[in-house]
Amino acid sequence: MTLKMSMDDLAQFMAAEFPQVADDFVVEDLRPMYLTMRLKVSARHLRPGGTVSGPAIFALADVGVYLAILSMIGPQALAVTTNCSLDFMRKPAAGVDLIADIRLLKLGRVLAVGDALIRSYGADVPAARASLTYSIPPALRG
Amino acid sequence: MTLKMSMDDLAQFMAAEFPQVADDFVVEDLRPMYLTMRLKVSARHLRPGGTVSGPAIFALADVGVYLAILSMIGPQALAVTTNCSLDFMRKPAAGVDLIADIRLLKLGRVLAVGDALIRSYGADVPAARASLTYSIPPALRG
Amino acid sequence: MTLKMSMDDLAQFMAAEFPQVADDFVVEDLRPMYLTMRLKVSARHLRPGGTVSGPAIFALADVGVYLAILSMIGPQALAVTTNCSLDFMRKPAAGVDLIADIRLLKLGRVLAVGDALIRSYGADVPAARASLTYSIPPALRG
Amino acid sequence: MTLKMSMDDLAQFMAAEFPQVADDFVVEDLRPMYLTMRLKVSARHLRPGGTVSGPAIFALADVGVYLAILSMIGPQALAVTTNCSLDFMRKPAAGVDLIADIRLLKLGRVLAVGDALIRSYGADVPAARASLTYSIPPALRG
Repeated sequence: MTLKMSMDDLAQFMAAEFPQVADDFVVEDLRPMYLTMRLKVSARHLRPGGTVSGPAIFALADVGVYLAILSMIGPQALAVTTNCSLDFMRKPAAGVDLIADIRLLKLGRVLAVGDALIRSYGADVPAARASLTYSIPPALRG
Repeated sequence: MTLKMSMDDLAQFMAAEFPQVADDFVVEDLRPMYLTMRLKVSARHLRPGGTVSGPAIFALADVGVYLAILSMIGPQALAVTTNCSLDFMRKPAAGVDLIADIRLLKLGRVLAVGDALIRSYGADVPAARASLTYSIPPALRG
Repeated sequence: MTLKMSMDDLAQFMAAEFPQVADDFVVEDLRPMYLTMRLKVSARHLRPGGTVSGPAIFALADVGVYLAILSMIGPQALAVTTNCSLDFMRKPAAGVDLIADIRLLKLGRVLAVGDALIRSYGADVPAARASLTYSIPPALRG
Repeated sequence: MTLKMSMDDLAQFMAAEFPQVADDFVVEDLRPMYLTMRLKVSARHLRPGGTVSGPAIFALADVGVYLAILSMIGPQALAVTTNCSLDFMRKPAAGVDLIADIRLLKLGRVLAVGDALIRSYGADVPAARASLTYSIPPALRG
């Protein structure tokens, strides 16, 4: 399996398609079926006490798996999240970026599945775990 | 079972504890173990094409089940989401508020479980479904 | 929406396609998008202490949503479970049948989604909750 | 972190506590926070066409994470599954054992979380993925 998009391609895609949130996310590493994503934590991601909010953690996993899929199938903005399961296991450290290690487990014609292990930068235990399914529309199935 | 907090109590709690997002959410109906919540959809909840973002849908379900729990156990800001499963079934209508019908399925000493059926205001089919588990810390267990 | 299979049709389908388990399950009620299923609990469904096993609860939800889908699309043995989320909330009563109230939330061309609320017969609180997604193969899509 | 139970201890525990199913499962590898489990597939695990049934896959993940937890906290039969999410990604090979690679992600005082990647023996792509949460009763918390 080979990549159809590079880290630069993914950054440009995000800036063009999701300008509201593109600045929050950085692809830190990429190889076929694997991607590492950073959430640059800022005030709008925080909850009282300084912890990163649940919606921000969801967004990190969702965007990360989405970009991992696009890196393999090409720059299509139309894959749709159909399912997500999340376990919140430890409070993220206050004011520290989050890192998501993502792997694709299935890349089918109709459905793609990936999971994410999320930790505070510098921590060696996970803060959260997520798995996500995407439906790939017929137009993209070649 | 009786309510320990009214709709007004919940609104004041949100304004005090979650001022960043309190204006987005309105409790529309409340009875023991059931709550209806509205997400007042604005630009920051949208994705390209006008649809409501996944993180905004997650936040609606998470805040809704959380407030349903608090309405039964009292104004404690410390219950923690431990698990969430989400099915995204239909694209929400563009620029229309979302309504979440929430029911509590378990209200135990240690864990509480609820689910949410989410639809665009005026629609009769669901856009999304969510179930969430919260851990209730020992200090709150009386 | 109208039913394409009756309760008798579903029972005959189960006996023909899943003879190993058909005797365990009874469709108790059926209307478009809703189905009630009973698991006739016997020794092989039990764990030490007399409680119904997790796999038996999973099977009840899985078979129930599957038959609810077939009741709407016709007797196709090929829909495939792609995702399941389960919350186990209370220990089922020992040696009592389980009842699953099932509703279909989406019946699309590619994916169908349903959920199940499961309780011991005669109980008024749920023992478990499940949501399931099925992929409907192209041959069935007409 | 150190193991409180060896592979032999786990096998004896299974035989004593879950005699109905103990013969189906073999712990193939064990180290702190990681366990590999084999399901010895036999006729009762199969569905028409020879594929392994969903309930058998659920049971493999559930027993595997449970034993991984016990290997760390000791031979307690009382931890209870509270949540499970499953993705079924590829049909298991007919008549081939299943292997589950399990890792514990959290081992807290109240909740433990683990996940499982499941494949047919000899296959290099996963058939299924599962994550599970267990509630650890107060008596076990020492």
